[in-house]
Amino acid sequence: MTSNVSVVLARRPRGKPQPGDFALRTDALRALEPGELLLRNRFVSLDAGFRKWMDAGSGDNVLPAMEIGEPVMGLVLGTVEESRHPDFQGGEWLMARLAWQQYSITDASDFLIRLPEPLEAEPSHYLGVLGDTGLSAFFGLRDIARPQPGETVLVSAAGGAVGSIAGQIARILGARAVGIASGPDKCRRLIDELGYDGAVDRTGDVDAALADACPDGVDVYFDNAGGPLLERVLEHINDRARIVLCGAVADYGSDAPGPRNLFALVTRQATMSGFLTHTRADEYPAARRQLAQWLETGQLKAPEYRLQGIEQVGPAFCDLFAGRNFGKTIVEL
Amino acid sequence: MTSNVSVVLARRPRGKPQPGDFALRTDALRALEPGELLLRNRFVSLDAGFRKWMDAGSGDNVLPAMEIGEPVMGLVLGTVEESRHPDFQGGEWLMARLAWQQYSITDASDFLIRLPEPLEAEPSHYLGVLGDTGLSAFFGLRDIARPQPGETVLVSAAGGAVGSIAGQIARILGARAVGIASGPDKCRRLIDELGYDGAVDRTGDVDAALADACPDGVDVYFDNAGGPLLERVLEHINDRARIVLCGAVADYGSDAPGPRNLFALVTRQATMSGFLTHTRADEYPAARRQLAQWLETGQLKAPEYRLQGIEQVGPAFCDLFAGRNFGKTIVEL
Repeated sequence: MTSNVSVVLARRPRGKPQPGDFALRTDALRALEPGELLLRNRFVSLDAGFRKWMDAGSGDNVLPAMEIGEPVMGLVLGTVEESRHPDFQGGEWLMARLAWQQYSITDASDFLIRLPEPLEAEPSHYLGVLGDTGLSAFFGLRDIARPQPGETVLVSAAGGAVGSIAGQIARILGARAVGIASGPDKCRRLIDELGYDGAVDRTGDVDAALADACPDGVDVYFDNAGGPLLERVLEHINDRARIVLCGAVADYGSDAPGPRNLFALVTRQATMSGFLTHTRADEYPAARRQLAQWLETGQLKAPEYRLQGIEQVGPAFCDLFAGRNFGKTIVEL
Repeated sequence: MTSNVSVVLARRPRGKPQPGDFALRTDALRALEPGELLLRNRFVSLDAGFRKWMDAGSGDNVLPAMEIGEPVMGLVLGTVEESRHPDFQGGEWLMARLAWQQYSITDASDFLIRLPEPLEAEPSHYLGVLGDTGLSAFFGLRDIARPQPGETVLVSAAGGAVGSIAGQIARILGARAVGIASGPDKCRRLIDELGYDGAVDRTGDVDAALADACPDGVDVYFDNAGGPLLERVLEHINDRARIVLCGAVADYGSDAPGPRNLFALVTRQATMSGFLTHTRADEYPAARRQLAQWLETGQLKAPEYRLQGIEQVGPAFCDLFAGRNFGKTIVEL
């Protein structure tokens, strides 16, 4: 009998998640019922947005609150090991919103996407640049922010999975990209490795650095961070600025007060929009093709922060919040 | 020699303005220079949005910060008493962003709008339903919020100058209108006098009242209040909700923290937009014609809270923040 190791929620995180918030559990893998399929998970994607549903009472129209002792929900990428579902067959690559487990059994009623056959890039990219985070950057910029050539696009958590792609897409669309990241090393990598035009060190004097890096003001703020940074950035927005709140945000899980200066939206006639990528599943194939093409031509780089083994999934999630990653955080199982 | 009484800023208001924040000053009226015109102000409009610029350092791209001892800026409506400006002649009605004074001298470089000739309604309406506040309601709903028939439009400060018009326009556009106001009397007047479908008493249990008055959730929040109400309303918005922050807001002058739950914009894929009415001056004539027509057919009512005499201008402004008004607050000089 095959055993299945899951990462369960040991306790509800307080603020930033800690490795002790998670534990491993080994179960025997049950047989499939008719209509079910068995997914062998090859990669786990770590996404800050899931932090929210670890809080009690956080259930909403997207997900219920996670339960103590139960496997943690996230995004996984795997191959169909066995199928009793008429629409799926062995060997297919699927990306799904399922638990952090070595194997998942699903009746395919979960959020589940079939990867293209043949694959357009190496599999792990479907969790990053060709997955939710890359697609968030793509849809958020192309459809919501709509930067015009020459405009300044400011990206927070710019070294993160979404931000590392967002700044590059902004440049491909003809805009000037400025990234906010923590510490001089990450700021340097934004410019040297990802082609950002400027960088703002979040650990320094943010106001001065914003004024310096965005001398013509901010036309688009692509916010992957939330929290107090938004208040600072609102002081630098231009008329008709567009602020995009990305679903994969880090600080929204905290209960910190919002910006005191929302009135800036009025005086600047600006717009702040939230969006969710997974509601646009119909548009995934075309968007992925575009991203894959940019990857192939080298216009787009897709850095990964990759750990190995199911026991690294909890720690890797914590690394996200500690800012240890650069690029997309994944664990290879 | 004609004397001119002005209302000057005696001290900077702390929080809500108090009558003692203002004082009267009498000057002799000087002769016109070439290119200037003399406006005899007939009505002063009281608008909460101007509170912001009474703070030190509040100057922005709209107005500089007001100075202690100087006439207070606002919106006035008057007739041209004398003109040495080639484009204006005696007797014309003008609406302008000028000081709270009996007479104004201007070279017409200020924000200034000529009223149609003949007038489409009684003059004071050009400061209210046909002025900035009515036009704010009109543009904010028609162009920004775009309510669909059957959607629920929630309006804060619904008994105020903008809110009293906004709810009625929402209903004309086929939506269901729910107003938030302070106290049971105002709530009753919203329904009885303005045709609102429901009302929420801000002084009671707002969450319960919102759930009760908006059983299908909130599709549009037309916010004239700002502040802590926004946090409450965010808990009730529907998918794809539009939140419109109106320029004529009451609480934004305060430095209160913003909503803790801006993440609701993400999970609801909602949009929050600020706008300024005075940047749409080109569209005023057509919008005013539409509003005047609704007034004439009785589809739209335009309640006024009217005081008399220049010495009442400061107190009337304070009444706005104390919530004493129902409808547009004006002083007839």
